[in-house]
Amino acid sequence: MKEHIVILGGGFAGVYTAMHLERHLRDDPDVEITLINRENYFVFQPLLPEVISGSIEIQHVINPIRRLCPRTNLLMRNVESIDLEGRSVTTSPGFRPTPTQLRYDHLVITLGTVMNFSRLPGLQQHGFPFKNLGDALHLRNHIIHVLEEADNERDPQLRRSLLTFVIAGGGFSGVESAAEINDFVRAAAQNYRHIDPDEPRVILLHSGDRILPELNEELGRFAERLLRERRVEIRFQTRLAGATAHAAVLRGGEKIPTQTLVATVPAGPHPLIEALPCRKERGRIVVNEYLEVPEYPTVWALGDGAWIPDLKTGGICPPTAQYAVREAKCVAENIVSALRDRPKKPFRFSAQGMAGALGHRSAVAEVMGVRFSGFPAWLIWRTIYWSKLPGWERKLRVGIDWFLDLLLPKDIVQIKTGRSESIMQEHYEAGEVIFRQGDLGDRVYALIRGNVQVVREEATGERVLATLGPGDCFGEMALLAAAPRNATIRAVNSVDTLVIYRRDFEALLNHLPGMRQIFERLMESRRP
Amino acid sequence: MKEHIVILGGGFAGVYTAMHLERHLRDDPDVEITLINRENYFVFQPLLPEVISGSIEIQHVINPIRRLCPRTNLLMRNVESIDLEGRSVTTSPGFRPTPTQLRYDHLVITLGTVMNFSRLPGLQQHGFPFKNLGDALHLRNHIIHVLEEADNERDPQLRRSLLTFVIAGGGFSGVESAAEINDFVRAAAQNYRHIDPDEPRVILLHSGDRILPELNEELGRFAERLLRERRVEIRFQTRLAGATAHAAVLRGGEKIPTQTLVATVPAGPHPLIEALPCRKERGRIVVNEYLEVPEYPTVWALGDGAWIPDLKTGGICPPTAQYAVREAKCVAENIVSALRDRPKKPFRFSAQGMAGALGHRSAVAEVMGVRFSGFPAWLIWRTIYWSKLPGWERKLRVGIDWFLDLLLPKDIVQIKTGRSESIMQEHYEAGEVIFRQGDLGDRVYALIRGNVQVVREEATGERVLATLGPGDCFGEMALLAAAPRNATIRAVNSVDTLVIYRRDFEALLNHLPGMRQIFERLMESRRP
Repeated sequence: MKEHIVILGGGFAGVYTAMHLERHLRDDPDVEITLINRENYFVFQPLLPEVISGSIEIQHVINPIRRLCPRTNLLMRNVESIDLEGRSVTTSPGFRPTPTQLRYDHLVITLGTVMNFSRLPGLQQHGFPFKNLGDALHLRNHIIHVLEEADNERDPQLRRSLLTFVIAGGGFSGVESAAEINDFVRAAAQNYRHIDPDEPRVILLHSGDRILPELNEELGRFAERLLRERRVEIRFQTRLAGATAHAAVLRGGEKIPTQTLVATVPAGPHPLIEALPCRKERGRIVVNEYLEVPEYPTVWALGDGAWIPDLKTGGICPPTAQYAVREAKCVAENIVSALRDRPKKPFRFSAQGMAGALGHRSAVAEVMGVRFSGFPAWLIWRTIYWSKLPGWERKLRVGIDWFLDLLLPKDIVQIKTGRSESIMQEHYEAGEVIFRQGDLGDRVYALIRGNVQVVREEATGERVLATLGPGDCFGEMALLAAAPRNATIRAVNSVDTLVIYRRDFEALLNHLPGMRQIFERLMESRRP
Repeated sequence: MKEHIVILGGGFAGVYTAMHLERHLRDDPDVEITLINRENYFVFQPLLPEVISGSIEIQHVINPIRRLCPRTNLLMRNVESIDLEGRSVTTSPGFRPTPTQLRYDHLVITLGTVMNFSRLPGLQQHGFPFKNLGDALHLRNHIIHVLEEADNERDPQLRRSLLTFVIAGGGFSGVESAAEINDFVRAAAQNYRHIDPDEPRVILLHSGDRILPELNEELGRFAERLLRERRVEIRFQTRLAGATAHAAVLRGGEKIPTQTLVATVPAGPHPLIEALPCRKERGRIVVNEYLEVPEYPTVWALGDGAWIPDLKTGGICPPTAQYAVREAKCVAENIVSALRDRPKKPFRFSAQGMAGALGHRSAVAEVMGVRFSGFPAWLIWRTIYWSKLPGWERKLRVGIDWFLDLLLPKDIVQIKTGRSESIMQEHYEAGEVIFRQGDLGDRVYALIRGNVQVVREEATGERVLATLGPGDCFGEMALLAAAPRNATIRAVNSVDTLVIYRRDFEALLNHLPGMRQIFERLMESRRP
């Protein structure tokens, strides 16, 4: 009977485990390897920020998993549940809605962490995450949309909010995103007739006293000076408290009007890992020095979602790509040893260095204890990551991208692949206007939390017509009557609303039994 | 006072009009040019099929409009209405829901045509259009999804349907798509462990007796032989009658089980053009030889949506890129003449040739009456279109793409930029199963048209529990109870349903007033 190794997750940890397993088990027909990942590609995470500005083309920062591990079965599905007792994994359905269950002999868990925006009000609805390729592409498209709108906007207040970009978090991810966004909007501004390259504001919020706490202070200060020279505003000791449809809300109550808030908050535990019946530490699976889950032999965990003892320092291995790649090698060897009844080896590794890009041909780096900054660090940074790109094909493509990036102007095409509007939520804080009398009615709202005032603007001033609370609907009149909004809606306190766009609303109204009656009764009750 | 020229549409006709206007009016501060287009890029349509296979990278087949016409104001919005009497145009709202109205002195209408799928049942829901960049990307992603699923599918029937690709329409667009899809799936199959390159079926349906009726018969027959050699199945005298979630339906009733139906049906009139109060012919705006709308001086129309007398042949100008580019030059000159009180010139042009790509380094072409086929035609085809690409930057990028395409394997990464599921519709024909007892319940249905049977599968056979009709809901039980489907639903006749996925359904249920009561009452009534 075949031994079945199932790997969950296609990041550095998962894909490199599969690659090493293939190398060791090349001619073993009795072992079957399956990797389950939502995408059929592997993202080279360290280069992801470059997708924002387009220095690297979208497709080149990713690699088809099937080409990296040709002997592995790839299942492009979501993992729905893990049964450690019954040794099986269930995935989401494919084209037909039948569940798929996989039995395993060895299970490798590399699910990583997830962005958890739910702790700050409004962030889920209005904050941009920056973790996977979809996030990067979505953010890039949004930035271009904002520039397009700003170019035609005369209202100075709205214009300022459109051209303000707020990035929360001064670690590697936040600093690299801020640098890339800053470079991109100032370079792209040259293609917008009515935007001055000095006009956009890029604001980096950081809770501590210096950015890049992962690196030594000198490099952090260098990065700070450089970003400031390039007109990034850095605000220390500042924490994000939430977001609304029109602003970033800071702790203390200050609001920065913006349409673009990028949040690189610390990642939280993966819900599937949270649900596992094994020991965890800060939401990460506790493994022994062999990267084994002690309670369940033949279950392995590594990468950002694992709590791995660092035998060199006595601490815990950091959640970085460098470590994940080495852990993958160790897990693969230990699985092969387990299959062949050989002794396992403990995981031992210490990082060789760290580097962070600051955009526009500069970076900071620390390699084997030596510090670099500026252009030399940038050369080191590019060389290291380029050499780590899996496959010569991607190396060639990224090399060409970087070469062309030196010659050609930044690309500003916005690639939409589908309609983005659907049923979603919006968040507002006290005093914010949700829509204004006379506006176009293109969506309906249902109040989830908080209160809003319905205000009629008259020649003699404002008149409050009603105050609505959770469970109330508003905005349906303009849609049903195909007329402009006949009143202004303003948040009284902290408000969450469900938003349904016209197309969906009409489909529901026409086809969902009972819906039309609900709204007809509502219209009736509002008649004066 | 400034003269305002407003151009609607950013295809060949619109963008080239703006480019020519800029050239003529370079140093005229009294003329303002505005172009309104839903995207901020111009698509080089003839190369679009190459996006399917990835021979050209997505971004390279498009060009930022701002870079092609730097003096023009670009408004990235939808046109909502045109008021020819009041000389103004209204666009969709931007970030704030306030309408935008533009006054014009000269209006250039280049809105083209739209795909009209509504005449064939189910096509709107289950057919893939192939007209713009979003369509090409969506189709590419879908083909990759189908391959991913097929690689893991054991059910021979479902597998066959996943690996069947049906293209309806044997004109340029259909033939080029079929050739590209055929090349791509067979090349990509090498990366799928369980798919044989011979296994996929690519079927081209054509209503006539030979493909490429736009060209002479000899070239059409050449293309037919070549595609057949490459295992494309061509079916003549076959018309599409509709589509369901699982099949292409042919006139006569035959069904081809497939998940991928690409329809290149003739395009229909643009709804904005249909609504205009001027004379039209087959949904196209009738203009005089100066490309002017006779009833409204200073309104101009060109491109696919205009009915333009062909002074050379006495007929009507064909809707091709070649003509659009020349028409644009003529319109721009005539507008400048109108502004400067000079006489206008009539439009006179005859096409120099035609070419169609057949994939894998072959094509058919007819240039100045001389016919070419195979590799020479392909060289001509590439040279012509490459030389027509606007801007040296795109020429360089496409050149590199084509060079790398000779060296490197086909890319199979699937780039998703957002969730695609939302509120949508599905179509089924009599006898088709919508879901099966025991399936996962991930969506709710509301019947729009037709009837379905609720069938319980028991040890002793099937038992029909109920027959539902328009206005009835089904599938909510499994979602509300988080259990597998407890019955099978089968279409009795031709059925249209609204489909709401779990996430949206839960949002509506929890937050839209009245929704929960409706479904609780429904559950109550179904209790045995």
